[in-house]
Amino acid sequence: MTLHWRSVHADGQARAGVLVTAHGEVETPVFMPVGTAGTVKAMTADAVRAIGARMVLGNTYHLMLRPTAERVARLGGLHRFMDWHGPILTDSGGFQVMSLSDLREMDADGVTFRSHLDGTKHRITPERSVEIQRLLGADVTMCFDECTPFPATHAEAAASMRLSMRWAARCREAFTPRAGHGLFGIVQGGVYCDLREESVAALRAIGFEGYAIGGLAVGEGQAEMFRMLECTTPLLPDDKPRYLMGVGTPDDILGAVARGVDMFDCVLPTRSGRTARAFTSRGVLNLRNARHAEDAGPLDPDCDCPACAKHSRAYLHHLFKAEEMLGPMLLTWHNLRYYQRLMQRLRAAILANRFDEDAAAIRAGWQERHAA
Amino acid sequence: MTLHWRSVHADGQARAGVLVTAHGEVETPVFMPVGTAGTVKAMTADAVRAIGARMVLGNTYHLMLRPTAERVARLGGLHRFMDWHGPILTDSGGFQVMSLSDLREMDADGVTFRSHLDGTKHRITPERSVEIQRLLGADVTMCFDECTPFPATHAEAAASMRLSMRWAARCREAFTPRAGHGLFGIVQGGVYCDLREESVAALRAIGFEGYAIGGLAVGEGQAEMFRMLECTTPLLPDDKPRYLMGVGTPDDILGAVARGVDMFDCVLPTRSGRTARAFTSRGVLNLRNARHAEDAGPLDPDCDCPACAKHSRAYLHHLFKAEEMLGPMLLTWHNLRYYQRLMQRLRAAILANRFDEDAAAIRAGWQERHAA
Repeated sequence: MTLHWRSVHADGQARAGVLVTAHGEVETPVFMPVGTAGTVKAMTADAVRAIGARMVLGNTYHLMLRPTAERVARLGGLHRFMDWHGPILTDSGGFQVMSLSDLREMDADGVTFRSHLDGTKHRITPERSVEIQRLLGADVTMCFDECTPFPATHAEAAASMRLSMRWAARCREAFTPRAGHGLFGIVQGGVYCDLREESVAALRAIGFEGYAIGGLAVGEGQAEMFRMLECTTPLLPDDKPRYLMGVGTPDDILGAVARGVDMFDCVLPTRSGRTARAFTSRGVLNLRNARHAEDAGPLDPDCDCPACAKHSRAYLHHLFKAEEMLGPMLLTWHNLRYYQRLMQRLRAAILANRFDEDAAAIRAGWQERHAA
Repeated sequence: MTLHWRSVHADGQARAGVLVTAHGEVETPVFMPVGTAGTVKAMTADAVRAIGARMVLGNTYHLMLRPTAERVARLGGLHRFMDWHGPILTDSGGFQVMSLSDLREMDADGVTFRSHLDGTKHRITPERSVEIQRLLGADVTMCFDECTPFPATHAEAAASMRLSMRWAARCREAFTPRAGHGLFGIVQGGVYCDLREESVAALRAIGFEGYAIGGLAVGEGQAEMFRMLECTTPLLPDDKPRYLMGVGTPDDILGAVARGVDMFDCVLPTRSGRTARAFTSRGVLNLRNARHAEDAGPLDPDCDCPACAKHSRAYLHHLFKAEEMLGPMLLTWHNLRYYQRLMQRLRAAILANRFDEDAAAIRAGWQERHAA
C-alpha cells in the first residue's frame, strides 16, 4: 500500500490524523525537524528520537552536492546514513537552488546552477529531482517546482505556477510507486487566491499522496499567509495530508493547524537554538541577555528537556558567553522539544474538541513573558 | 573522613585502587575528561556519564574569569552548575596563567596578570587559588605552583621548584579540611632527578591527600617524562594517589601506569575529536581523509560508542567535510569512550597480573593501522 493519511478527528478545520509510511506511522499535526545535510544540526539521532520527533526532513540540494545522492545510495540510503529509522521527507531542491546557488539558469525543462560550495555546474530537472529523492530513499518525495519570488505580479505568479504544474505532471510520471512511499504536489500561486485555486485543480487532476502549500513564508507576512491558507485548504481533498512548507513560528503553526494544515518543517527551532534564542511556554528568550547571568531558575519550568531539567538559565547564559558548543546543543534540544510538546498539545486539543480554547491559552502563556 | 585512596592490587609498579571522595568512589587508574569552562566540550553531562567517566577536571583560570568562582558558588557550586554529580578535580590556575594570560608579573607572593578575554587585571596567590577551588566546590584541590618552563637550567628549575614548595606549604595552611575533600601537592623539578627527589621530600614533610607530578609533557619528550616518573614515583607514599598532570596519549598513559601513576587528565581526546582525529584500537585515524568517503565500515569495530555502533566512517567523514557540529560531537564521544575503555582494560590487566602482556597487546593493535 502506498503512503497514506487517515483522519482520526477534526475540530473545526483543525485535523488530527495518522500518516502511514514505509518507516512507521506518524501522528499529525506533525513538526519535522530539519536535517539539512544528513544531520539535524547539533543533535544526535538518538536525541532527535528522545525529544519525540517521528519524522525529519532532508534537503536534496545539500545532499546532491555533498556527499551526493549516488554515494548516499551506495551507503544504503539516507535512513542508514544518518541513523534515522523513522520516515524522511525530502524537498525537491528547487527552493535552495534559488536561495543558495550561483549563476542559475532556468529553462522550461529545469534549472542549471553552480554549487555554492565549489562552483561546479549541476542541473536539476523534475525527473532528476525525483531520481535523487529515490536514491536518498525518501518516504515522501516532493515535486520539483519553482518557488515563486515575493513580491510577484499576478502575471509573474501565474506563469511561475503554471510552469510548476507542468513539472508536477512530469514528477508524477517519473515517480516509481513503492509501498509506503509517496509523492506530494505543491500548490503555488503567490498571494493570489484565483491562482491558488487553479493550482489546486491542476494538482488534483494529476493526483498525489499529499498536497503541500508552497511559496509562503517568503516575506508576505502572517496575515497574507493565513489568507492564502483560507482560500487553499478547503479546496484540497479531505483524505490527504497537507503540508505547509518552511513554516514557522509557534504562532504560525497554531494559525495553520486551525486552517487545516497537518505537516510543518522549519529551521527556526534549530537555527534559533544556535543563536541563544529559546522558545518557551512564556515567550521567546535570548539567553545571551545579562539578566540571565545569575538566574538559578530553569529556562522553562514547564519543559522536561535536559536544558530545563538539569541546568539553570545562568549556566546556559555562561555557555553562550563562553562560546561553548554545549550551548547550541542544549538550546537546539530544548527548542525542538518545545515544538514537539506544542504539536502534542495541539493534537490532544483537537481530539478533545477544544482546539480554539487551548490555542488561546497557549498564546496567553506567551504574553506572560516570564513576569514571574 | 578526608578524601583518600585505597590500594586494591598491584602488578609490578602498576596499581589498581579506589579513590574515595565526597562525590563517590572512583576506580583507578582513571582518566579524567577535561571540562575547562564548566563543560566537557561538545558533550552533555549525561553523555560524559554514559561513556563511563566518573571524575572530571575543571580549570580554575577559566572559571575565575568567567563566570567567576563567586558566581558559581552563589549558583550552588560547580557540580550543580554543570550537572556533574561525581567528583571534580580543579587545577590551581597556575598553568593557564602562564600559557594564556597577558602581562604576567610573578613575585614571591603570587602572580598578577591580565585576562586573555577582556584585559582585566587579576591576581592569584596560593591562598586565593585554594579559596577559588573551595568556592567551586572541588573534591580535589590542587596546590598553586609555578609550572617550570622547559627547557630550564638546573638552577632555574631548582629556584622554581623551591618557590612552588613554599607555596605548597601556604596552600596546605589555607585549605579547610572537609569530609571527602583533599589537597594534592605537586612535585616539580624539571628534568632533574635530584630536584624531583628534593621536591618529593618537601611535599611529604608537609603531607597531602595525593601527589601530582607536574611540569612534564611540556616538550621534554616521552623518554625524559618516563625517566622522571622512574625517579619520582618510587619516592612517593604507597598509600596515596598519584596524578600525572596533563598526560597524555594512550601510549603515554600505558607507560605511566606501568611506572605507578593512578590519575590522568588531558585535552587530547576532546581536542582531537573536534579536529577529526580518532583514537582507535588500531591506531589514530583522520576522518577528513578522502579514503573514508565511501567506507561503510565502523570507525572502530571494537567500540560501542554511538559513532561506531550507529554510523559509518563515510558518515563521519561527511560530517567533518560539511562542518556539521555532529562531527565533533560524535568524535569527542568516541575518543573519550576509547580512553575510558583503555583505562578499564588496564585496571583489569593489573587485577589479573598481566599488565605487561596486555599493554604489549594494546600497542600491537595500534600497529595494525587498519590494515583490514
